[in-house]
Amino acid sequence: MQAVIDYLKKNQSRAVAELCEYVRFPSVSAQPQHRGDLRSCGEWLVEHCRAIGLEARLCATKGNPIVVAKTPRAKSNGATRPHFMVYGHYDVQPAEPLDLWKSPPFEPRVANGVLFGRGTSDDKGQALAHLKAVEAYLKTGTPLPCDITFVIEGEEEVGSGSLAAFLLEHRAELDCDAVVISDTGMPSSKHPALTYALRGIASFEVTLHGPARDLHSGIFGGTVDNPAMALCQLLGKLRDKDGRVAIPGFYDGVQPLSAYERKQFARLPFKARDYQRLLGVPKLFGERGFTPHEQRSARPTFEINGLTSGYQGEGSKTIVPAWARAKITVRLVPDQDPAKVIKRIRQHLKKLCPPTVRLEITEGHGAEPYLVSPTSPQAQAALRALKSAFGCEPVLIREGGSIPIVNQFKKILHADSLLLGLALPDDNAHSPNEKFDLDCFAKGQLMGVYLWQELSGV
Amino acid sequence: MQAVIDYLKKNQSRAVAELCEYVRFPSVSAQPQHRGDLRSCGEWLVEHCRAIGLEARLCATKGNPIVVAKTPRAKSNGATRPHFMVYGHYDVQPAEPLDLWKSPPFEPRVANGVLFGRGTSDDKGQALAHLKAVEAYLKTGTPLPCDITFVIEGEEEVGSGSLAAFLLEHRAELDCDAVVISDTGMPSSKHPALTYALRGIASFEVTLHGPARDLHSGIFGGTVDNPAMALCQLLGKLRDKDGRVAIPGFYDGVQPLSAYERKQFARLPFKARDYQRLLGVPKLFGERGFTPHEQRSARPTFEINGLTSGYQGEGSKTIVPAWARAKITVRLVPDQDPAKVIKRIRQHLKKLCPPTVRLEITEGHGAEPYLVSPTSPQAQAALRALKSAFGCEPVLIREGGSIPIVNQFKKILHADSLLLGLALPDDNAHSPNEKFDLDCFAKGQLMGVYLWQELSGV
Repeated sequence: MQAVIDYLKKNQSRAVAELCEYVRFPSVSAQPQHRGDLRSCGEWLVEHCRAIGLEARLCATKGNPIVVAKTPRAKSNGATRPHFMVYGHYDVQPAEPLDLWKSPPFEPRVANGVLFGRGTSDDKGQALAHLKAVEAYLKTGTPLPCDITFVIEGEEEVGSGSLAAFLLEHRAELDCDAVVISDTGMPSSKHPALTYALRGIASFEVTLHGPARDLHSGIFGGTVDNPAMALCQLLGKLRDKDGRVAIPGFYDGVQPLSAYERKQFARLPFKARDYQRLLGVPKLFGERGFTPHEQRSARPTFEINGLTSGYQGEGSKTIVPAWARAKITVRLVPDQDPAKVIKRIRQHLKKLCPPTVRLEITEGHGAEPYLVSPTSPQAQAALRALKSAFGCEPVLIREGGSIPIVNQFKKILHADSLLLGLALPDDNAHSPNEKFDLDCFAKGQLMGVYLWQELSGV
Repeated sequence: MQAVIDYLKKNQSRAVAELCEYVRFPSVSAQPQHRGDLRSCGEWLVEHCRAIGLEARLCATKGNPIVVAKTPRAKSNGATRPHFMVYGHYDVQPAEPLDLWKSPPFEPRVANGVLFGRGTSDDKGQALAHLKAVEAYLKTGTPLPCDITFVIEGEEEVGSGSLAAFLLEHRAELDCDAVVISDTGMPSSKHPALTYALRGIASFEVTLHGPARDLHSGIFGGTVDNPAMALCQLLGKLRDKDGRVAIPGFYDGVQPLSAYERKQFARLPFKARDYQRLLGVPKLFGERGFTPHEQRSARPTFEINGLTSGYQGEGSKTIVPAWARAKITVRLVPDQDPAKVIKRIRQHLKKLCPPTVRLEITEGHGAEPYLVSPTSPQAQAALRALKSAFGCEPVLIREGGSIPIVNQFKKILHADSLLLGLALPDDNAHSPNEKFDLDCFAKGQLMGVYLWQELSGV
């Protein structure tokens, strides 16, 4: 192992130079004019994988090609070796607005141990760290305790439209014990993290229809229900004063936080006053009995995303509006079922809706919540690898948002995902002046080295 | 009196021809290109008033000129004669959409005893009926029991912007015992009506401010209040299940309906099923304990006219919106005071608003409610004139909307207004194919004849 670690140390400046080369491709998947750049970037990546000793190929899809790169399979002696997949993406977010960048987004620049450029942390640098770790094994002739397949796609920033079909088609080849993904973050450089849970989502629209058209509120007001008022009364009943969602059955399946998890949450850095100032709210508010970290990642929520009714222009218009609408998303946690939750909401709204308006519910997209038990052997193995690489106690975190591909890996490959993010909170993912801490890059490579040992041992 | 009545009968077809001449002026006050037509129309009206024996002049204003026409004052014998003002307007609504008219809006057409054309009922025909009544007195040499001043303006359809200054300037000349206005409606030709009350109005906007910007509902949702939800909960509390406005002090000053008034309301034609179908609502809804006629004209209401918050486009956007806003108008009845009501609402919203959002209230326009006691001598005199002219029992009605000029007459001239509308519910005021029933025109003239006798006798 020492040879592997020494190799990484010795080749660190070359690794940074290679990352710079990788970042120079303006592989912006959202912008059609970069279609060629995406292909060139994928081809560069295949070449790079081959150069470090992997068997690599570019797989065509309906969209941008997917890079597949495998460690040379050890000669089978009858025993099954573990097989892990590393997922990443070589496409990046648009760089606009360009005038806010301090240096050109696709001309990487190092300053004070930080590399600036679009895609440095999301996700080129993070994925490359894993490639460098495997390179160190291969180039030093150190035997890997497992087989590894890299799957690096080019459409993550536009919804991974080709990934599901690709996974289905290559199901046998990609069958694995776990998927490792470094595409998220950690709270600080002193808090390397395993993200073990994600919230799911369900979205829908509620429309209340009243009169056939907007009515003159002087002539008719007082004799018909006002759909905007009815909507307020209907939705207002769906959250209680303790911040809980007041829909029967809404919390069905919600896994209570274990003492272990809550202890882990408590270790996360958090200053209420700073957080409140960051968001600009007069006062924080959330479900009673939970800390903000728990509220925003481990508890389900009911959010009105938009309200529309009647007149919205300057001044006033004296009408009873014909209809009122709310766009709503609920964030879900393991093991809530989006379909069941929507059914419960439908039932409850139907029950609450007065006969003076007509209720219409339209369903939108959904995603299931995700959870890997933080005490599972794989999760604990990942935590050990983080601790060895970073030299401090890692934290366990949940993300409040969804990462739909994780559900695809679960559904299609039946594999859990270990989210080992290397980005810092101020790395400006999706924003101007995106950056990647080169210390995180180096420690991420080290983490990759330890990870295969730890994961293969369990 | 018989001579006066005979004169009207004999000259009816000429009166209709004169109304046609009057309607031919496209005196659309909202459209600048008709500025000259308004002036020509006003000049025609002055000429017409002079021709029937009135002392008439065109008074310049900052906007369109106002026609003032007076009956020749009888030689004073020391006693004070009653003085009444007749208010009307010679401007009309735009005729658009033109393609929905069955005949050109400014080419009046008679069919089945009905005159079609823009302004026929609103308000050229109604005002001309009063001129014809006075003409009959003057042309037959029948002494009028009172002095009468006609004030016919050219900006009613655009807010009567010049009227208040005009009233102030001519306060002494216009000092009168009552103002007679025929510019409203009656429920049917068998229900001639005195409109004795109007609702007032107060308008305002409520905005709840939450986070400094829209927040990602996955990353932050659960730790901050959602302004759209807070708005729903806030506004939802302002109406109870009996349809009453749940704001302390809101009903302060509301005059209870007398048994006499409720009896009058009960005489009005009304079919719940037809009304519900007309409005297109699943079910009627209003303040418990009152009939729809009472609810929409004699009871105050709280209406949300518009809701705005967050994302309103296609699909969904997973945000906690930064703010949510409601446009609101309250309809007020005698003797609610708009300023006091707004103050009460402010206080209550402040009290209810949670500390997790910031409340902002912006006030808009307002108008005081209006009431002439239906049992006052003038009101009863008007009812007698209606009965004599139409040959059936008149009804007493309240209008749910506001007519701001009525408040100006009260405030500046200290005079009550008698609203004796001659338009039928299907006369299409403000709509294509506006019409005026020629029987209502003739009976309106007759009503004018009786009115001066009845009013001067009280």
